[in-house]
Amino acid sequence: MATVYLTRKITFCASHRLNSSQLSVEENKRIFGKCNNENGHGHNYTLEVTIKGEIDPKTGMVMNITDLRKIMDTHVADIMDHKHLNLDVEVFKTVNPTAENMIVVIWKLLEPHLAKGQLFEVKLHETDNNTSIYRGE
Amino acid sequence: MATVYLTRKITFCASHRLNSSQLSVEENKRIFGKCNNENGHGHNYTLEVTIKGEIDPKTGMVMNITDLRKIMDTHVADIMDHKHLNLDVEVFKTVNPTAENMIVVIWKLLEPHLAKGQLFEVKLHETDNNTSIYRGE
Amino acid sequence: MATVYLTRKITFCASHRLNSSQLSVEENKRIFGKCNNENGHGHNYTLEVTIKGEIDPKTGMVMNITDLRKIMDTHVADIMDHKHLNLDVEVFKTVNPTAENMIVVIWKLLEPHLAKGQLFEVKLHETDNNTSIYRGE
Amino acid sequence: MATVYLTRKITFCASHRLNSSQLSVEENKRIFGKCNNENGHGHNYTLEVTIKGEIDPKTGMVMNITDLRKIMDTHVADIMDHKHLNLDVEVFKTVNPTAENMIVVIWKLLEPHLAKGQLFEVKLHETDNNTSIYRGE
Amino acid sequence: MATVYLTRKITFCASHRLNSSQLSVEENKRIFGKCNNENGHGHNYTLEVTIKGEIDPKTGMVMNITDLRKIMDTHVADIMDHKHLNLDVEVFKTVNPTAENMIVVIWKLLEPHLAKGQLFEVKLHETDNNTSIYRGE
Amino acid sequence: MATVYLTRKITFCASHRLNSSQLSVEENKRIFGKCNNENGHGHNYTLEVTIKGEIDPKTGMVMNITDLRKIMDTHVADIMDHKHLNLDVEVFKTVNPTAENMIVVIWKLLEPHLAKGQLFEVKLHETDNNTSIYRGE
Repeated sequence: MATVYLTRKITFCASHRLNSSQLSVEENKRIFGKCNNENGHGHNYTLEVTIKGEIDPKTGMVMNITDLRKIMDTHVADIMDHKHLNLDVEVFKTVNPTAENMIVVIWKLLEPHLAKGQLFEVKLHETDNNTSIYRGE
Repeated sequence: MATVYLTRKITFCASHRLNSSQLSVEENKRIFGKCNNENGHGHNYTLEVTIKGEIDPKTGMVMNITDLRKIMDTHVADIMDHKHLNLDVEVFKTVNPTAENMIVVIWKLLEPHLAKGQLFEVKLHETDNNTSIYRGE
Repeated sequence: MATVYLTRKITFCASHRLNSSQLSVEENKRIFGKCNNENGHGHNYTLEVTIKGEIDPKTGMVMNITDLRKIMDTHVADIMDHKHLNLDVEVFKTVNPTAENMIVVIWKLLEPHLAKGQLFEVKLHETDNNTSIYRGE
Repeated sequence: MATVYLTRKITFCASHRLNSSQLSVEENKRIFGKCNNENGHGHNYTLEVTIKGEIDPKTGMVMNITDLRKIMDTHVADIMDHKHLNLDVEVFKTVNPTAENMIVVIWKLLEPHLAKGQLFEVKLHETDNNTSIYRGE
Repeated sequence: MATVYLTRKITFCASHRLNSSQLSVEENKRIFGKCNNENGHGHNYTLEVTIKGEIDPKTGMVMNITDLRKIMDTHVADIMDHKHLNLDVEVFKTVNPTAENMIVVIWKLLEPHLAKGQLFEVKLHETDNNTSIYRGE
Repeated sequence: MATVYLTRKITFCASHRLNSSQLSVEENKRIFGKCNNENGHGHNYTLEVTIKGEIDPKTGMVMNITDLRKIMDTHVADIMDHKHLNLDVEVFKTVNPTAENMIVVIWKLLEPHLAKGQLFEVKLHETDNNTSIYRGE
């Protein structure tokens, strides 16, 4: 039996503002700089989700990648695409939408819809140069 | 004498909302769909500016590309990067920030800082799949 | 009034075989080499369609890019995606599906569904290194 | 001594049809959808092979990456490039050429030509959005 | 008859130093900055050559793109790849190897090996952000 | 507590020559081929540095990615960008600047400026096709 990793990539466009309720106005400005701009800014986010599993000898697939895409569309893109994360997405009304917090949130959104132990990695590219990865550790 | 085209690419991250003051609420919703989301959404914009000119035989350059980058940074990125276009950028308080309107605005911002006839093309990628081009026609 | 070029990119996956009915078996082998393989081979084609027009002052758009994408999906992708061009697409049963012939075919498929004079350019990337462009000339 | 991972990327163009001999005609249609098209479809596959080893203090290399490329060309590209996988490649006459099955096949093709324990990972991108990884587990 | 543009892309790796014999040491330092570093620096150059012509009704091709690649390999890559342009390439011993001068040189190297009027454009990407284009004007 | 991996990408342009003082002239020529060209050649290097850590609940960040970029700029780019590695960078006067040796050198340059255990991976792309990775093993 062979264990294979399968990755699906999608993109979504959203705006956000980095601002923590646990920091003062001055601390937020100093730490987040231009990312703290009051009216927010935005990104074309690229999300890569990797699942892990054995190849089903009947189909030759670990999972139908079309099903994986649908789960990502329904539970992530439908909630975050063409939205202002801080204002339109419930969880980010209290959680600062850094890339780090976003991937943990995305992990929690996806995990219940996949088989136990199947979700391996969530990778989020905020820009071509900035990437965050979470493996449920 | 050889005429050469020189292109410099920069990126900036901004949020915007497609909404026209000349259309009703219903028309804006129907025409712009999810891009009309009240709180906006965002993009990593990629801007490519092309100038045209003869090679200076002394330097071997049409223009110092570092100077071109500085003009783009000062007159476009400094105004639009990490901003909400509709709320933070004066011109887009009345002009709908579609990619088409944005490149005409960007052309007008850059042209006064380049030699007469030097600006050839402004290209703006809103996403990997959507691009607008203006050549001053 | 400003004339703007608007480009939309889509991808489709197809197989094809380069083989001309006007050439002998030996000529086809010699000219097309491995692209003449009897059972065909395939590509992830990237198609970029550019339209040209004036910005509508009401909407700020030349054309709704979502409508452009739908026209490309309906009249190109629905016919060619996940197909064997020579065997599944009527026109390529008699026309050799080179990238050059494909873009002229694609131009003819799209033109009737756009305003007169609106279609400006069809660009097809067969691989990252090989591209063909047609402008209706 | 430093352990380093070295990755070489190549591309090849092939067509395939997803169809399992262990499934009925109806099941194949339902599970594989448009990928089950009888005449097949195709991709520009991107293959990344990673080896792992210690740096040779004399050469400063883990392995000559030119040799790695030659092994990949000879044992993978020469067999699969510009081919119809199901019809032209022996193993895929009985094995369904999903990306998952392909990377296990590619691992087996490469392993005998590398030092024991040297092959670390085979990664295959079927499209920009769909990727499979095998680590010999 | 349809006129089509055909583009082939290749890459080559070279080092160069921007330094003009018509400028003083101080002027060279001021104008070219870090590009004037005495021992040079380097790039992965990407070269895109576009030819223009009518589709041959027999073959369905404007030109065999494999022949175009061979001409580019023989007359550009074989001369510039893995070389120090200023020291190893005859013409750049006296001509400052800016991207602008390079594309004019490359145009002259390619033109004699193509049909009259066939060469349309030479585009050179020095980095992802800096590009020069020459059309023989 | 969630452990997250954070990656920052930068590029730098440098020239180098592959040549080992522990090999004869003939061995260097045979092993490194065109990479042994006496005057060197160059690359646009892409460097990806990944750190690992827990999310700070106050900021929502593992580390301020702007600080990571500054460390990479100061301790790598400022030393290697627009330089000839063998001639301008002290360590490569005696160490052969293969990608493998470069990432171990880069690891050692970065590690003292990060928290203990924070540096997870250094990845260097010499070209689009050739990549080396070091994880401190």
